[in-house]
Amino acid sequence: MGNETGFFITVEGTEGVGKSTNIAFIQQLLAEQGKELLVTREPGGTPLAEEIRAMLLSQRQEPVANDAELLLVFAARAQHLAQTIKPALAQGKWVLSDRFTDATFAYQGAGRGLDWQRIAQLEQFVQGDLRPDLTLLLDLPVEVGMARASARSAPDRFETEKQAFFERVRAGYLRRVQEEPSRFAVIDASAPLANVQQQIKDALITKLGFVG
Amino acid sequence: MGNETGFFITVEGTEGVGKSTNIAFIQQLLAEQGKELLVTREPGGTPLAEEIRAMLLSQRQEPVANDAELLLVFAARAQHLAQTIKPALAQGKWVLSDRFTDATFAYQGAGRGLDWQRIAQLEQFVQGDLRPDLTLLLDLPVEVGMARASARSAPDRFETEKQAFFERVRAGYLRRVQEEPSRFAVIDASAPLANVQQQIKDALITKLGFVG
Repeated sequence: MGNETGFFITVEGTEGVGKSTNIAFIQQLLAEQGKELLVTREPGGTPLAEEIRAMLLSQRQEPVANDAELLLVFAARAQHLAQTIKPALAQGKWVLSDRFTDATFAYQGAGRGLDWQRIAQLEQFVQGDLRPDLTLLLDLPVEVGMARASARSAPDRFETEKQAFFERVRAGYLRRVQEEPSRFAVIDASAPLANVQQQIKDALITKLGFVG
Repeated sequence: MGNETGFFITVEGTEGVGKSTNIAFIQQLLAEQGKELLVTREPGGTPLAEEIRAMLLSQRQEPVANDAELLLVFAARAQHLAQTIKPALAQGKWVLSDRFTDATFAYQGAGRGLDWQRIAQLEQFVQGDLRPDLTLLLDLPVEVGMARASARSAPDRFETEKQAFFERVRAGYLRRVQEEPSRFAVIDASAPLANVQQQIKDALITKLGFVG
């Protein structure tokens, strides 16, 4: 996907890796270069997809069937792609999504044990060949990330899960890097912030030819 | 699927064909025989699936992407199967659902033009080989059904669509009958009620060996 149709960047990582801070940094970097950037998030990114997000995150008595959860995640994604991501790219905008399909593999797949191949089937069903042009994986030892995250907001359903869970999620992300290495940049998020941001800038230059 | 694990019956048809009346009739028929019957409906059948139903039926500004709609329908269905239908069948209960997957083919597929094969892919993904043991299709000329339905409740998003739409839906149901003839009984719902109910009883006897 060339400059004419914009680049699609996703930012991934477990809790507390610094996604928000670094998304703001990328936003500033692109603005300085006069690039138009749309920042969005998953699950969510449209009113309907945000409703589905709330449905997924809410505590409920009823156990949610694995397939139902995956189909809801991909319903939100289909809506997000059709209403937000694809139209923005078609207008030549850059799009940056706080999480995308790799998070489904990492959280639902590796983290909670939902079938990896079933996720891949739905990825193919919804996205066809569409993949991010660049995925920045902010990678950090789990105990560091959890300590950072626990200082912040009230825990939601996913955040109340345990360290072993986040270890599996991290491993899931790294499995995705092995499966599709060319679109990933693994960022060492344990480094000082200035260094993390240099790594991100380097990735934009190397992978997308960004001149910063 | 034998008596040991219960029978799964679905009732299908366009608006105004008399689904509610005839479901009540089947309920009474089975009760007289001492069969335990669970009556449920789609989309819906569990609290989460009912939430998804409300999401699908609500009027919204945002256009709903075809894939998002299909994935929501099948998310509700996956939950319905896992939480309601399969457990009841496993306990030896009979299950009667007011609409099931044939309605997705008829309404979303034939009625609104969503891709038939994509629906079939999701049917396979969610259900594997699971199909109703018997599907009663209450078939009626569209103008008769619409006249019956319009006297009733406030129109929802689907009911406000036009006669041509319901003609396509009816044709979609009949296409399903051609694709999987052995599980269908097509009931002439334009006949007097007593006759319709005799047709239904005959179908239960012929297809499921029901002794009434």
